[in-house]
Amino acid sequence: MKKLFFCLLTCLPVLTIFAQGDDSVIIKAIANEILVNGKAYDNLRYLTKQIGARLSGSSGMVKAEQWGLNTMKQSGADKSWLQECMVPHWVRGGKEELKVTNGAEKNHQLAVAALGNSTGTGPKGITASVIEIKSFEDLEKNKDNVKGKIVFYNYKFNPRFIKTFESYGEAVMYRYMGPAAAAKYGAVGVIVRSMTHSMDNYPHTGSTASGDTIPKIPSMAIGLRDADWLDDQLQKTPVNVFYKTNAHFLPDTIGHSVIGELTGSESPDEIITVGGHLDSWDLAEGAHDDGAGVVQTMEILRTLKAIGYKPKHTIRFVLFANEENGLRGGAKYAEEAKAKNEKHIFALESDAGGFTPRGFSFGGSPEQLKKVQSWIPLLQPYGVYEIEKGGGGADVGPVSQAFGIPAAELIPDTQRYFDYHHARSDVFENVNKRELELGALNMAAFIYLVDKYGL
Amino acid sequence: MKKLFFCLLTCLPVLTIFAQGDDSVIIKAIANEILVNGKAYDNLRYLTKQIGARLSGSSGMVKAEQWGLNTMKQSGADKSWLQECMVPHWVRGGKEELKVTNGAEKNHQLAVAALGNSTGTGPKGITASVIEIKSFEDLEKNKDNVKGKIVFYNYKFNPRFIKTFESYGEAVMYRYMGPAAAAKYGAVGVIVRSMTHSMDNYPHTGSTASGDTIPKIPSMAIGLRDADWLDDQLQKTPVNVFYKTNAHFLPDTIGHSVIGELTGSESPDEIITVGGHLDSWDLAEGAHDDGAGVVQTMEILRTLKAIGYKPKHTIRFVLFANEENGLRGGAKYAEEAKAKNEKHIFALESDAGGFTPRGFSFGGSPEQLKKVQSWIPLLQPYGVYEIEKGGGGADVGPVSQAFGIPAAELIPDTQRYFDYHHARSDVFENVNKRELELGALNMAAFIYLVDKYGL
Repeated sequence: MKKLFFCLLTCLPVLTIFAQGDDSVIIKAIANEILVNGKAYDNLRYLTKQIGARLSGSSGMVKAEQWGLNTMKQSGADKSWLQECMVPHWVRGGKEELKVTNGAEKNHQLAVAALGNSTGTGPKGITASVIEIKSFEDLEKNKDNVKGKIVFYNYKFNPRFIKTFESYGEAVMYRYMGPAAAAKYGAVGVIVRSMTHSMDNYPHTGSTASGDTIPKIPSMAIGLRDADWLDDQLQKTPVNVFYKTNAHFLPDTIGHSVIGELTGSESPDEIITVGGHLDSWDLAEGAHDDGAGVVQTMEILRTLKAIGYKPKHTIRFVLFANEENGLRGGAKYAEEAKAKNEKHIFALESDAGGFTPRGFSFGGSPEQLKKVQSWIPLLQPYGVYEIEKGGGGADVGPVSQAFGIPAAELIPDTQRYFDYHHARSDVFENVNKRELELGALNMAAFIYLVDKYGL
Repeated sequence: MKKLFFCLLTCLPVLTIFAQGDDSVIIKAIANEILVNGKAYDNLRYLTKQIGARLSGSSGMVKAEQWGLNTMKQSGADKSWLQECMVPHWVRGGKEELKVTNGAEKNHQLAVAALGNSTGTGPKGITASVIEIKSFEDLEKNKDNVKGKIVFYNYKFNPRFIKTFESYGEAVMYRYMGPAAAAKYGAVGVIVRSMTHSMDNYPHTGSTASGDTIPKIPSMAIGLRDADWLDDQLQKTPVNVFYKTNAHFLPDTIGHSVIGELTGSESPDEIITVGGHLDSWDLAEGAHDDGAGVVQTMEILRTLKAIGYKPKHTIRFVLFANEENGLRGGAKYAEEAKAKNEKHIFALESDAGGFTPRGFSFGGSPEQLKKVQSWIPLLQPYGVYEIEKGGGGADVGPVSQAFGIPAAELIPDTQRYFDYHHARSDVFENVNKRELELGALNMAAFIYLVDKYGL
């Protein structure tokens, strides 16, 4: 009987579709608008090629904000504005260097990128010997051997996980917590193997932990070919290196999230948020991370207007500031919403790349999850077949927590994401137009269904 | 009641997983072997970069056959051999040209590629005016206006279809039947808009109908930018062109399919076939079409050996000759199997690119379809969530028909396939290692399940 009951529940998606004829038609209209008249790809070309990198505090950030506001208006927002927030201003600060200083490979250079929010060595650099550490357990075993040395975390991105975010979740701890952990035992610098499957040797940057109570030492990433090379050298001989990064913080500066709004026709006070983040790392065009989410967000707005859909609730389209190294935009958005006593009901994010969609991650009650899963038959023709328990991305976290509301995130196919993530290779050319569009159309459909049926 | 019955059937996949614990473990072993120790990507690099294009009759074909036989042995085949078949020997025959000869755009050149199996103009070329035709209905309306002209089929690849093979199925008729249809009304040449969404302007070749009873005129493809340009010109002014292709057939020559075998432990006389095609068009490396299928086929063999799996049935791994412009390898394989009175039970193909897998297409009875669909929960962790009614690809068609057995094909995500299909851009760099591997592992799992449970 239990099995039969379970069966009835899992069959609901199949049965409810017959009641959703209108929904199929509207979602088809959304799909056709995006696939035939889509602007997301052209917008992404402009953002990546005309503006490019846009780390918080950079001139690219300012240009991106202005472009975002203009594009939000062109996309048909009823209202649009900039939401100010103070953002950290971390800079790479010029030439970085990692060079062998002893033995047969003397003067051999490795390609490096300082980790975001890391501290630098100053212009003189340091010279020290390298110790390879395979894991945090390995660090504990070697805690008496790292003093005065540069710790090389060579934790490999695990190929056994099918969804690469699981490999990332495991490996990123060495980037995020590794420097502080090594500093505790007296290390003078850190080298981290990049979190990627890609053998193209680009170093992948990304935030490392920072803050007043966290011990700081210079830290940088190297690509996989260099990591394997260094590992190989260290099997044979001690390796000393000249190690230099000029990374440092400037004072916090003013940044902005860009917000557009379609005002609700029935419950204008109830707000649905959809967004991506406008900032990117300094090394790349930020095409997948998160140019894709940015242009998808505005494409949903453009499309709902284009097909003449009048949302019942107010829909906010947000290009968040400073996701990469501070999350100040997401925090400010929630803070201001609370201060204004707004009523928020749902938030959706796209920050996993412009790849072909597979599903959504959803954080809500079991009943709410069941409800959104009942919509899968409507999305499956467009490539979405699973809505898994999870949550939204980083930017919608604060608003979700502040209001205790469900948040969700688009889950595209993950195989290529970490090939480009936080590296120079995250460029427009690596985004496929239709994959980007299919993400936008599934998000638009999801927003439409939440607007129509609630949660 | 009917709905409940339907419900019970659709729930079977959920229920049967509990009986398949061993299967999960074996499929996980397959997955780990491929993702950690995989050779498919390196093999593909060799095939595309060291051998490259390998159209039937070319020197590349001969090199590919030798490489295939060696790699089949290295992958662990119990037996391996070449299966001879006569193959067509069509050649492009040197420089192709399409150039405007009148008006303000005189001498403007378009990038062209003669269609496979097409006839040429000879070295002197032809000069004629161009008439644009939007569809076969349009051709009928204009049948009195095409005599002596070059017909430009400008049928657009439909962006509304989510699965791009549907756009292809519709548009490819103009490449395949268009030249013969235009010849019937006295056209002297054909230009076809390429079947792609990609705006990179590469012309996409591919077979056009040929045979003694089919009227033949020279025919070539142009890329999308050139097609839009030509359309634009024709709105404004008559366009005359110089049109030259040297395409022609040489006498049929000897080609080979490459076959490897794992001999069955319980029913060695019952044969399961898995394969892809070894030939490619002359313009490209044939990385997705069908280098991917070739290396996936041998990866399944290598993996089953590596994990120590002893198949009950004999499994044949086949790199088919001449899929692109003749299908002689597939036909010969079936013919010889019949002549030898072999017993075949199932055939699986990969010929839709090395992209992230989404499902399988399966041609069999409703009961057989239901049975293979009950395996979906075992494959879903690896990205396969649908097994749709359909059939195998072109190469396994003949053996499926000859023996009346089910055939299946891997269905990868289709968004990028026609960006590269039959064009110069179908190169190794456009294949992602893990997407290729995920295809191989789902195919290996499918073969394992058919071997274990039958159909």
